[in-house]
Amino acid sequence: METTYRSLLTWGEPEKAQSLDQAIRELARARLGLSAEDLEGKHLEGLEPVRLDRPCQLPASFVEALRALHGPENVKTDDLCRARFAHAKHYQELLRLRMGQILSPPDAVVSPRSEAEVEELVRLCHREGVPLVPMGGRSSVTRATETPKGGIALDMTKHMNKVLEISEKSLTVRVQAGMYGPAFEGYLNHFNTGYTCGHFPQSFEHSTVGGWVAAKGAGQASTGYGRIDDMVLALRVVTPSGTIATKPYPASAQGWDLHRLFIGSEGTLGVITEVTLKIRAFLPQNTAYATLLFKNFAGAVEAMRQIVQSQYAPPHLFRLSDPEETEVAFRLKGFDDSFNDRLLQTLGFHQGQRCIMFVGCEGDKNKNKALVRHISRLARRFDGIYIGEKPTRKWLEQRYASAYLRDPLMDAGVMTDTIETAATWDQLLTIWEEARSYLKARPKTICMTHISHVYENGANLYFTFLSPMAKGKELLDYQSYHKGLVNTLTHYGGSLSHHHGVGRALAAWMPQEIGPAGMALMKAIKQHLDPKGIMNPGNVLGLDEA
Amino acid sequence: METTYRSLLTWGEPEKAQSLDQAIRELARARLGLSAEDLEGKHLEGLEPVRLDRPCQLPASFVEALRALHGPENVKTDDLCRARFAHAKHYQELLRLRMGQILSPPDAVVSPRSEAEVEELVRLCHREGVPLVPMGGRSSVTRATETPKGGIALDMTKHMNKVLEISEKSLTVRVQAGMYGPAFEGYLNHFNTGYTCGHFPQSFEHSTVGGWVAAKGAGQASTGYGRIDDMVLALRVVTPSGTIATKPYPASAQGWDLHRLFIGSEGTLGVITEVTLKIRAFLPQNTAYATLLFKNFAGAVEAMRQIVQSQYAPPHLFRLSDPEETEVAFRLKGFDDSFNDRLLQTLGFHQGQRCIMFVGCEGDKNKNKALVRHISRLARRFDGIYIGEKPTRKWLEQRYASAYLRDPLMDAGVMTDTIETAATWDQLLTIWEEARSYLKARPKTICMTHISHVYENGANLYFTFLSPMAKGKELLDYQSYHKGLVNTLTHYGGSLSHHHGVGRALAAWMPQEIGPAGMALMKAIKQHLDPKGIMNPGNVLGLDEA
Repeated sequence: METTYRSLLTWGEPEKAQSLDQAIRELARARLGLSAEDLEGKHLEGLEPVRLDRPCQLPASFVEALRALHGPENVKTDDLCRARFAHAKHYQELLRLRMGQILSPPDAVVSPRSEAEVEELVRLCHREGVPLVPMGGRSSVTRATETPKGGIALDMTKHMNKVLEISEKSLTVRVQAGMYGPAFEGYLNHFNTGYTCGHFPQSFEHSTVGGWVAAKGAGQASTGYGRIDDMVLALRVVTPSGTIATKPYPASAQGWDLHRLFIGSEGTLGVITEVTLKIRAFLPQNTAYATLLFKNFAGAVEAMRQIVQSQYAPPHLFRLSDPEETEVAFRLKGFDDSFNDRLLQTLGFHQGQRCIMFVGCEGDKNKNKALVRHISRLARRFDGIYIGEKPTRKWLEQRYASAYLRDPLMDAGVMTDTIETAATWDQLLTIWEEARSYLKARPKTICMTHISHVYENGANLYFTFLSPMAKGKELLDYQSYHKGLVNTLTHYGGSLSHHHGVGRALAAWMPQEIGPAGMALMKAIKQHLDPKGIMNPGNVLGLDEA
Repeated sequence: METTYRSLLTWGEPEKAQSLDQAIRELARARLGLSAEDLEGKHLEGLEPVRLDRPCQLPASFVEALRALHGPENVKTDDLCRARFAHAKHYQELLRLRMGQILSPPDAVVSPRSEAEVEELVRLCHREGVPLVPMGGRSSVTRATETPKGGIALDMTKHMNKVLEISEKSLTVRVQAGMYGPAFEGYLNHFNTGYTCGHFPQSFEHSTVGGWVAAKGAGQASTGYGRIDDMVLALRVVTPSGTIATKPYPASAQGWDLHRLFIGSEGTLGVITEVTLKIRAFLPQNTAYATLLFKNFAGAVEAMRQIVQSQYAPPHLFRLSDPEETEVAFRLKGFDDSFNDRLLQTLGFHQGQRCIMFVGCEGDKNKNKALVRHISRLARRFDGIYIGEKPTRKWLEQRYASAYLRDPLMDAGVMTDTIETAATWDQLLTIWEEARSYLKARPKTICMTHISHVYENGANLYFTFLSPMAKGKELLDYQSYHKGLVNTLTHYGGSLSHHHGVGRALAAWMPQEIGPAGMALMKAIKQHLDPKGIMNPGNVLGLDEA
């Protein structure tokens, strides 16, 4: 069993680990100024064995009580296990692991077997003032699942990972919070005639239903299926002030919606134990794909806006890469300078300006065909041309693979992170321009942007940036670069997050976003549900002190 | 100027008042057992002049402060004005007015001119502990705007009734809370290329944007355009603990959605001063209508379910009347025994079983045509036939008129009320059956039901019931009949309300619906925002004592 820091930080399944191929290396040399040495080296490799400075601080009697409650095999206090639950996948967390730093591990990792056990555990922790941090797949990129005050990391995935009930008539499913994406979607796909949840975040393979809800995520098909907040009909949540269970009405006017408080609560209000979600018929044989190419970003965005405002059922997958992301993708796929490339350039689709759009329409076959016709027609008004199904299908096939590139890029000394925001159409292009100006002011920086969640009133912007680390001061350099970027996004009218959540990474901006009366209200809700502040303490959402 | 109780209770505009036509009279004789005397008489006519037993209880200095703040013409303390703001349109309120009972009028009616004035007023009332009840069009059918503790009726309609900002690019509009439906929709329809809000509750002509949001309503085109909670992007609300302003992002993951707390807050948390709503292109020339007739309710409901689950954009208007509502409608329109009626009966569409469905699809013309084809095709599988556009168009033309029948029916001594619920498809038919059994167990009772808001996971049920009043004990009779009905709906899995809201009429059921921890949370939120309990006090949503 691997016991190094490196074993903790690598993404996903070891057998899917990637190295940088020739095309990426060339790009890295040309754009990021990496040397052959950089590309061969392993910067901050993290090969030291994990060693925690902080042993479990819980009184032995408390640990005994945990063992009695959950069974001894479900309460772990060994270093490696605690180290594994001390971090998720935020860039800063990965950097620290590479440096052999685990500053504040949990004191124990507990895997409850039932809601009743969670209730008893919450009572126990509340009584003793022990911090409790609910965790799903720990794929957070906002430092939402760190344990700065120690306490218990609550692993929901080991036991509480099952579908409890499905209604094929009402198209609803009741599922435990700790079920992982692939198991859940697999269950639905293979249940009788087949259903889908329709929620495919980039972290799909390594995230859980409860995590989706707690972080208020959106999947890659959200334009059609909606965000997780559109899918949740009801939930159960265990709080220090009691268990709240809402009912799965399709809609209701019985006061304000209580379940909405817990969508986006990021573990600060209680432990979500189960969720009732919408499901849809699974009809992959009907899906219609289209790939479109536009001459420039502004035209493509305008086409996107008009399509989503045209009162057709929107496409499910609806994604547009900006010129730099399109250029990088074309280069890495070996498309540059091909016959097709030269043809497109002749037609006015110039490198550095052209943008690629992916479309996938699910559900009824006739509807899908009509929708693709409609989209293609509207696209033509904005100099967009249909270039076939294949690029979209290809993108879908490898959509979860790009996350594996982060590790070898960091090995090569590249700072690699993403940030995302949402804004109305009025603000969108300004934010894109200003964020790019900010990011590109740093020398040797690649900034790739896409729109991947589209609404009648606006869309998200998703920025991926790569730049050589400032060696020796990697952390401070990243933090100050990131801070300026968030300031830029929010200054120009972007939301603090569209689907990653806030966690600890963005908490400092909450007061300005929500306003003093809004923050006071959030804190009052927190205070009522969790009067001793045991639930995910340490400044998540700006609710308490760091 | 009319000064009778009757002048306070009649619905809508006096020139649109209706009397009972021949067909209704015949039905009332046959089904409700009304005599000619009943039909000619005016039961509890309410012709006495309004006289309040309770004069304004506010200290003169406080009234002076109000006059200084809002201008003397915007602070009324005369009996007639206070009487007008003492009630809305709940059946019990109408009964009491007919009996000359206004138990607890407000002490003053105040019409603020700006949000700043509202803020100052809320501060003043908070300081002095004076109740404050925000009011829009006072069309509530849940006793949500009564003033059991006196205090101030806040009339938002006089001044705060304007559109503040519109974005044709982002399709958003910022509007003040006191704008009435027709003025708002008229503004949008005639703004440049034309937009619609898409929100058409039955009370449309006499309700306001703020009221729609506060009561969490849904309009007759909600299946396509969504409920008001789907349309609100942001709002501003003045609470005793400060003004909360949320931002109009198309979506965000910056914590839980604070604006959702105020949708359905029914005036208990603060004064909603403005709302940012989605709008859509107004394209009435494109609307496709269809009317379908089904052989029985279960088949029609199944068709409805499959249509809305088929991943097409749903129709905007989607409405199904049950056999009794269909029968009454056919009889009142003189359709019974016509040639077409006999033809339909021959084809197996029997009176007492057949059900009529109205469909209206808005937006793009091609999409609408395809959708109507799809719906007709699916309907055929469940013995549904297309019977033309006309009945749907006719229904739309007179859709706001039926509310005017309530006054002449009550004049004839008929108890006439409606109740509504929402449930998943699994529960829907059971609730329909059980509620009908309950209602029809009362002799001489007409019970008409429709589904008018359809979701992938379920739908609403809307019951209209008519039965002779128990003369001399009208109120107690109604209260006990209504109580049993609500118990039936909730017992079989229906929500306490789908779009009317809870108010005071349904408050007693809130604890069982929300559970103890849920109620405690709602009360904690109330306590934080309104620590002295001045906002719409007196048991709205079960938040305080009656």
